[in-house]
Amino acid sequence: MPKPEILDPQGQAVTRALTRIGIDGVADVRQGKHFELEVDDSLDDETLHRIAGDLLANPVIEDWTVRRV
Amino acid sequence: MPKPEILDPQGQAVTRALTRIGIDGVADVRQGKHFELEVDDSLDDETLHRIAGDLLANPVIEDWTVRRV
Repeated sequence: MPKPEILDPQGQAVTRALTRIGIDGVADVRQGKHFELEVDDSLDDETLHRIAGDLLANPVIEDWTVRRV
Repeated sequence: MPKPEILDPQGQAVTRALTRIGIDGVADVRQGKHFELEVDDSLDDETLHRIAGDLLANPVIEDWTVRRV
């Protein structure tokens, strides 16, 4: 997800659209990317974090989390 | 997330990039959108599902879930 201090024009556009279609009660909207990876059990957490931080996220403007399901 | 039967070129590009940087063990990658909404307690689940299904997702090609945290 975009870091809190980063402007999120897409999220702001969604917030305005919600107001236009008459839906109140939404104070803020943030839009980010979501990846689902199908991996072998051999892939360790360190590698998963490397994939997330080096390839999938932009660490300068994005925060990211890794979750095994 | 894109429905399983929908081609995901972005996910495929990530899968190929992982192989190029020498990371094996990733069978598939799917890329989708993730939204975080800050809402009043007055907003009920039905409205949240309406927001997700009518505005944030494209129900023709995407599956979506709503989670309160």
